[in-house]
Amino acid sequence: MARKNIPQRSRSYESDDEERGACEWCEYALVITLATILLIGVSALTVFWVVYYRESYGWADDIPEKQFNLHPTLMVAGFITFSGFSILLYRICRCFRRIYVKLLHAIFHALAFPCIVIGFLAVLDFHNKKGINNFYSLHSWIGFVAMGLFGLQYAVGFFSFLLLLICSKGTASFRASLVPIHASFGILTFVLGVCACLTGLTEKALFTLGAERYSGLPDEAVIINVIGVTTVAITAVLMYILARDKFRPQLRDRRISERDILVAADRGHCDQRHRRVGGGRRHLGAVHGSRNWRIPHPQGRATPQLNNTTPLCDWLTNRTLERGDIYQIPAKRRNAL
Amino acid sequence: MARKNIPQRSRSYESDDEERGACEWCEYALVITLATILLIGVSALTVFWVVYYRESYGWADDIPEKQFNLHPTLMVAGFITFSGFSILLYRICRCFRRIYVKLLHAIFHALAFPCIVIGFLAVLDFHNKKGINNFYSLHSWIGFVAMGLFGLQYAVGFFSFLLLLICSKGTASFRASLVPIHASFGILTFVLGVCACLTGLTEKALFTLGAERYSGLPDEAVIINVIGVTTVAITAVLMYILARDKFRPQLRDRRISERDILVAADRGHCDQRHRRVGGGRRHLGAVHGSRNWRIPHPQGRATPQLNNTTPLCDWLTNRTLERGDIYQIPAKRRNAL
Repeated sequence: MARKNIPQRSRSYESDDEERGACEWCEYALVITLATILLIGVSALTVFWVVYYRESYGWADDIPEKQFNLHPTLMVAGFITFSGFSILLYRICRCFRRIYVKLLHAIFHALAFPCIVIGFLAVLDFHNKKGINNFYSLHSWIGFVAMGLFGLQYAVGFFSFLLLLICSKGTASFRASLVPIHASFGILTFVLGVCACLTGLTEKALFTLGAERYSGLPDEAVIINVIGVTTVAITAVLMYILARDKFRPQLRDRRISERDILVAADRGHCDQRHRRVGGGRRHLGAVHGSRNWRIPHPQGRATPQLNNTTPLCDWLTNRTLERGDIYQIPAKRRNAL
Repeated sequence: MARKNIPQRSRSYESDDEERGACEWCEYALVITLATILLIGVSALTVFWVVYYRESYGWADDIPEKQFNLHPTLMVAGFITFSGFSILLYRICRCFRRIYVKLLHAIFHALAFPCIVIGFLAVLDFHNKKGINNFYSLHSWIGFVAMGLFGLQYAVGFFSFLLLLICSKGTASFRASLVPIHASFGILTFVLGVCACLTGLTEKALFTLGAERYSGLPDEAVIINVIGVTTVAITAVLMYILARDKFRPQLRDRRISERDILVAADRGHCDQRHRRVGGGRRHLGAVHGSRNWRIPHPQGRATPQLNNTTPLCDWLTNRTLERGDIYQIPAKRRNAL
């Protein structure tokens, strides 16, 4: 077919694309603004509630309730605001280098960490001072699991995705296989944090206002309910962002498609020496940020293998592409070109 | 390259694939079994709790509490068990035809519908009999939004994905664009149901046991907490299933890849007549369940358009392929082959 006969059509597609791009940026800006307002708003509202209705904060005071007040404030800040920003920034940062996005993700979780620890100690000390049992309620059970998961995720994430970069090539396979697990458990930790927040607010409303006053819906009850509803709204917005493939920076910015990789394989950018040494499979390395293909080093570790049926770009979407990563493509599939 | 020189290698990939397939099926069976046990278990546990500790059920009885007991039981059955099975079956059914999976999805939601309505009426009537205000608590606010979303989702889903099949071809574009919205709001409705369940259990524990007895963690408190934890576990398992691309039936069973479609386009399976009539874009129709490509009817409605950069299989993953659906591929992209 004569491909040079359609220059005007090509232009019209480009303008189509630009229009789509503008719409997409509008949605992108709108969703980020909404998420930011909600994430800051929920913490601001909690501080307002405590300062205006609950006698503000204190520690080692003669009023243990002031110490307790640190618990909702710091837990909302740690589990919702900072963790929410961390998830949001990791997913939406399109312009920075991957390592900076990772550092930002780690920094926001590092800010959440002391909030959660101090928030936990505040309620533990309050319970001990008042002679109340620990870990009896549904709220405390969910909160305990959420804290455990948060700590585990932080340790695993820091070790695997930052420390192991010292030996980037040797650990690429391990890190790539860990990404979907870390992401799933991260979202689960956030949802558990939200559940703990909602059950905690319900407990607090019934403990301090009592069933009778709560059912009259005084101003304070409205504030407590609005904090809960804001938390639910944050979950909805974050779920929307996570579900939208358009917000994923990986494939979009790097423009690596199945065709790119298979064509590169077909053009002989394969490691013939490695094929002879390692036997069986042919290897292909992808250098991110460009369309150059790298012949992997024979000492490179074995990497996640693609089977004969999964579409390659689906498979890549669930993995973090790193400079120097090596992907195996079965010869059968490569030969199908 | 001499492709016939590697028969042994090809075999080894096939056995690799079979092994991977067996592992995948193991994971598939394990996750489904776990989800089924948890989904049935949470309802069974709620019935046990009510019958054993809360004087069983009743309606228009002299004990309004018996009527209230219908509320947690039916809401857990509707929002968690039936809705959970509906989501689960929609995602994991690989062997049935798409229309049967849709019907199964609709039937399970149809079972959830009366549960939610009767569960809501039970608590409304109980409140009125006891002179308690309605819609004051965080639990009721979240529950109200969840019920509203459930009704809206059912109406939109039934109308769009079942009734509009009467005019399958003309509504393909509309239905395809609705799928991600319906899925996102469906998951949000489920999460809201879980949040309502957890806040409701916390309220119930504090209302009936009281703060003092609850903190002593008697048997009934443990049962209530375990119901809550089971609900959280169901959320975790369902999130895992939804996050796993392997559990998606669409692309896997139909084996439609970007390459299939672009190659078909390259081989001239394009609607030349339509190109002349409709101008601009070239069309390509995909008949699901086979590798046959159909020349679309010129009267076919305009369909969602792929831009020049999104990987096609990503784009297809977010859409429901239906017999006779037509997809537009920009000439520029097609020419890039």
